[in-house]
Formats: sequence, C-alpha cells, structure tokens
Amino acid sequence: MPSLHDKTIIIDGLIVSNFGPEIFRAMRAGGITAANCTCSIWEDFPTSMRAIAQWKTWFREHANLILQVYGIADIHRAKTEGKTGVILGWQNAVGFDDHLPFIEVAYELGLRIVQMTYNTATSVGGGCYESNDGGLTDFGRDVVDEFNRLGILVDLSHVGSKTAADVIAYSKKPVAYTHCLPAALKAHPRNKSDQQLRTIADKGGFVGVTMFPPFLR
Amino acid sequence: MPSLHDKTIIIDGLIVSNFGPEIFRAMRAGGITAANCTCSIWEDFPTSMRAIAQWKTWFREHANLILQVYGIADIHRAKTEGKTGVILGWQNAVGFDDHLPFIEVAYELGLRIVQMTYNTATSVGGGCYESNDGGLTDFGRDVVDEFNRLGILVDLSHVGSKTAADVIAYSKKPVAYTHCLPAALKAHPRNKSDQQLRTIADKGGFVGVTMFPPFLR
Repeated sequence: MPSLHDKTIIIDGLIVSNFGPEIFRAMRAGGITAANCTCSIWEDFPTSMRAIAQWKTWFREHANLILQVYGIADIHRAKTEGKTGVILGWQNAVGFDDHLPFIEVAYELGLRIVQMTYNTATSVGGGCYESNDGGLTDFGRDVVDEFNRLGILVDLSHVGSKTAADVIAYSKKPVAYTHCLPAALKAHPRNKSDQQLRTIADKGGFVGVTMFPPFLR
Repeated sequence: MPSLHDKTIIIDGLIVSNFGPEIFRAMRAGGITAANCTCSIWEDFPTSMRAIAQWKTWFREHANLILQVYGIADIHRAKTEGKTGVILGWQNAVGFDDHLPFIEVAYELGLRIVQMTYNTATSVGGGCYESNDGGLTDFGRDVVDEFNRLGILVDLSHVGSKTAADVIAYSKKPVAYTHCLPAALKAHPRNKSDQQLRTIADKGGFVGVTMFPPFLR
C-alpha cells in the first residue's frame, strides 16, 4: 500500500458496484478510508430498504473489513482500525416514494448522501439527460430542507444543470458533485462547467473527479 | 396525579389507539412512565414503516410530552423529565414481509416488542382464533432467533396456545403476554391458562393484565 494512503484520510466520492466480500477486500487493498457506497438508484422505498438491510447484514458478517459511517468519528475509527468506512448513499431521491417522513427513517439507518435526480426528471427536478429541465420543484425544496435539517449531503452529479443551479442557490448547507468531470475538458451533458464547479467549491461543498473515460474522450 | 404514580415507574404493557397530541396529553395525565404503543397490526412493511416514520415526526413535534424508548435508560429519563416513554411495538410479525433482515432495520428504528401473530395464522405460526394451530413454524423459529439476538421482546397475547407454548419453550430470552386475562376467570380463546401464565413468569417473562371487559364478563 503506498505510504500516501497510509498517512492520509482518503474518501472515495462514489462507488457503485456489485458489493460483497470480494469488493470489501479490494477496497481495503486500495487503501481508501471511506466511501460513498450507492445502495439505491431507481428503486422504490421497499427495495431501497432491502438494500440497506443487506448492508446491515454485511456490516455484521464482514466486520473485519468494513464499518458503517454515521458521523465523522466513524471515519477516524475506520482509519485507526484499518477498515473501510461505508457511507450509505442513494443516487436518486425516488427511493423515498415521495413521502417526506421516510427521509428521517433512512437517515436514522445511516443514509448520509442522496443525489436529487439520476439522469431523468422526477418529482424533485430535472436530470442531466432531461431535454427540458424545469429546475427544482416545490417538493424538491421540501426534500432539500429535510436533507439540510437532518444532515444528508445533497449530490448533484447526475442532476440537470438548471435544477443543480437551483439547489446550489437554495440549500442552506454545502452541496456536492461526488463524481463528475469538467465540461472544459469535454462538452457533455454529464460534465460540469467551470462556473458550476467554482460555485460549489465557493459555498464549501465537495467536488469529486470521476475516472469514467466516456465522459472525457 | 396519585402519589403512587409519582413514586413508581409504571409501564403500560400495551396501548393501541388513534395516537396524536390528545392521547399524548392523556398519557401524561394518567401518570404512566412508559408504554408499548402499537404501530402495526395487519400492515405490510411499507405501511408499518410509514407508522414508524409518523412516530419520528411526533417525537419531534411533541417532545414536551413524549420521548422514544430505545433502552432502559430512556425509561428512567422519561420518569425524570416528566414525559411518557414510547416503546414502539407491533402486534404482528407480518410487517416484516417475511424478510428476516427487515427485523434489524426495524430494531434500529426502535422497534422493541413484537407479537408473533394477531388472532390468525401467518407464516410464523397460529393465532388465538385459529381452529388448527399447528405451532411455531421453521420460519417462526428464525424470527424468534432474530428477536432474541437483537433484543426484541416476544409478545404472545393474541397467539395460538400451541404456538405460544412452542415459543415459550424455544425462546432463549424471556417472553411476554403484554395484555391478557386469566382463563380461570372466563374460558375464552383470548384468555390464558394458569399453566401458561405460570410458565412465562417462571422463565422471567412479563404478564400484563388487560382491562378489556368482553373477555371477562
């Protein structure tokens, strides 16, 4: 393991994978301290809860490799104990079945990062492949309020640029592009303008650079 | 408020009600320290989760009247702070949608008491009005194992007598009749024999006497 990884707290902005012990061992070999692990994209509430329940079983069965991150202390604990801290994340807000109180339930189970939309339009706003992104909806504002209140990081990586701009302006807490590339390197609906990247950083948010080649070449 | 209630920790074995602020005030006026509050009877997993989510909202909005009980310390805190401690309970195990990992999810949200069946037969065993109670099923054993592991109290009040006897014998932790009456006072399928009551008490369990007149007169 490179000594940089030994000395530094390294957080992977987003991993989506066919998770299981093999991946947990690879995450250890890679030397990351913690990662935002996707456990819902298109799924409804019951199916997203099944994914969270599956993680609870993994946390028990593979406690030598992974631990759940509820807060910052758990990231430091992961570093000290030589495990990977798993931050449960959703890449879409559809998993709440449009029922606001489900956000608090998912938060209590450890959900800490949620993307507003995934490529397409939903009840909260537009996605990055939506040809007619109308921006953040009224219900979307309620969702951001609830994320802000509880402490769930808002991810805008796959969100439409108008909706993303609305969220950046509206959110009382810093937001994130957990996995994205600069449009300055390649014009692509999934890539972000220098202005967008700068605004997030200026507001104290987080920008993660993804290594997904199709968006670069 | 009678001084007995001031001095004593009083736990109501089961309340099923159209809960809301009016009931929360009545619970304070009644001087109980904590109560097993039913939030699922026949409902499936998503609907039972909606009921739990509703309680989370109530805990926030009526924090002057109620607090959630996750463990014994919260009961003492309710007593000290003059609030009613709410122990979330289900009167049936159907709310897990036959998916064992959902038990841990519900536990993390504070579910602490679950009745095996409610009057009728399910995948875990027979109910007290079932004419052909075959006893605890294999899946029912898995459910009891999970309750035992996590620390969820098994309630047998509405459970068929054969299934109840099987659970009492099988469970590694004490079980309960949270709300029942002695069959010695009136022969009725919902009432419990002296033998059943004695066995639970002998194993360190809890027997709550209900005041529901139809089962007495």
